[in-house]
Amino acid sequence: MSKIVYFNGKFIKFNNAKVSIEDRGFQFSDSIYEVIAFKNSNFIDLRYHLIRLRKSLKSINIKYRFKDKDLEKKFYKLISLNKIFNGLIYMQITRGVQARSHAYKKNLTPTSIIYIINKNFDYKTNKLIAKTAITYPDLRWKKRNIKSVSLLANVLAAAEASKKSSYEAILIENGYVTEGTASNIWIIKNKTIRTHPANSDILRGITRDSVKKLIKKYKLRLIEKKIKKKSLYESDEVFLTSSSNFVTPIIKIDNKLINKGRIGNITMELAKLYKLRIN
Amino acid sequence: MSKIVYFNGKFIKFNNAKVSIEDRGFQFSDSIYEVIAFKNSNFIDLRYHLIRLRKSLKSINIKYRFKDKDLEKKFYKLISLNKIFNGLIYMQITRGVQARSHAYKKNLTPTSIIYIINKNFDYKTNKLIAKTAITYPDLRWKKRNIKSVSLLANVLAAAEASKKSSYEAILIENGYVTEGTASNIWIIKNKTIRTHPANSDILRGITRDSVKKLIKKYKLRLIEKKIKKKSLYESDEVFLTSSSNFVTPIIKIDNKLINKGRIGNITMELAKLYKLRIN
Repeated sequence: MSKIVYFNGKFIKFNNAKVSIEDRGFQFSDSIYEVIAFKNSNFIDLRYHLIRLRKSLKSINIKYRFKDKDLEKKFYKLISLNKIFNGLIYMQITRGVQARSHAYKKNLTPTSIIYIINKNFDYKTNKLIAKTAITYPDLRWKKRNIKSVSLLANVLAAAEASKKSSYEAILIENGYVTEGTASNIWIIKNKTIRTHPANSDILRGITRDSVKKLIKKYKLRLIEKKIKKKSLYESDEVFLTSSSNFVTPIIKIDNKLINKGRIGNITMELAKLYKLRIN
Repeated sequence: MSKIVYFNGKFIKFNNAKVSIEDRGFQFSDSIYEVIAFKNSNFIDLRYHLIRLRKSLKSINIKYRFKDKDLEKKFYKLISLNKIFNGLIYMQITRGVQARSHAYKKNLTPTSIIYIINKNFDYKTNKLIAKTAITYPDLRWKKRNIKSVSLLANVLAAAEASKKSSYEAILIENGYVTEGTASNIWIIKNKTIRTHPANSDILRGITRDSVKKLIKKYKLRLIEKKIKKKSLYESDEVFLTSSSNFVTPIIKIDNKLINKGRIGNITMELAKLYKLRIN
């Protein structure tokens, strides 16, 4: 864990970075966040994360202004102060502090927090680690395109996955896959790749967009259409994408083995291409 | 605002009550709460609030243990320390502090916060103040029976109501009323009172239950069934109930006047009976 945090405009010790019990992020989950991976001090898709950050802020009308260049400088300074060169930037902005009331006042000063989470990515080897997943009901709110901290439904699903020693919970709504608790879900059947369209039912992952570009570049077939829970089990391959775990193969879902429990060829190829891209 | 807060087992100054940026209440809305009104230092329906608190904790597996009597003592001490004799107890429990990860660790120490919000209830007069409401899409998660701080959907609805100078937003899902952002909604048509059944689509209000008992006691007609948005507009009377605002008449919804903009007789009667009960 990083020792130094950028908190409301200042670089301070992590343990001193504390928020008011009336912070709206704490009392109402009135707050948004971003997670940005960096490798050898290089940010992965920084520009797209900051575009999404602006979108999230705008969608719930939090007035936190920033220049990309300034924010990038803060990120670099955190890397340098904490001497962590591979990991994740965690950034959270809340609407600010106010006496408790659902409706918010105008002109609150947002609370802003940036810190680093240490993570050693396995870049050097081509060894992909296969993971397992469970399915779980999608109990989330309806604006999943906003990267908000209203994450209790995700927490309950992730807790269930963890209890079953699974890596991720794949969320199911009305018989269809939406996404994972912290990832987008992809299946492959007869060499066609399929994933949920980017609407308000899912968070449009930055890694999802990057993988889409790779799919296009390498002329693979992609359909953006909802996936039936049943089709999930019957897939030739399943993988997930996320900013912190890139392309990750899923070889077992609930009690069903996918591709006889082996990592599939297309997943392997996409993971390799993605790693090449960010290296 | 109260000067003294009960924070993690200690009575401390409000401004010193701050939570870690890794508190799961802050990063994941992994937290529940209760709001309990008190009048002349008497708590309204305390027992039922504590039953619901236990239910909420249990439903998301937060292990915060308490004895009703001990908690009541803390509440009284806050009243006495802060010299506030009419108002609301706000209590929030989070799962605790943990390095960021959707899945939670076992045996975290919950963060607990109790403080007082000053509020002068208009008890002495029988003057009921009529309010207005808007309708707004219900964007919330699916477990609304849990009193969690995953409240961003409520915030957005309340903000819209506030923008339109309305008191409350009545949430609509698939053409039906669920409840308000912080209240239960009731309509009256041809002397029959109607409200949403207590399932996971709404929070089962403590005041809702009390008003149900009054309705029964006074042999009024009640149906617990979903209300069409259209029926809302065509009601003879509309009112809301909440722990902090009791029985509150609604006389205008969007641009439609209810009962020609006057408080209806049954609402008036129920409000009076409720006030008698808590006086």
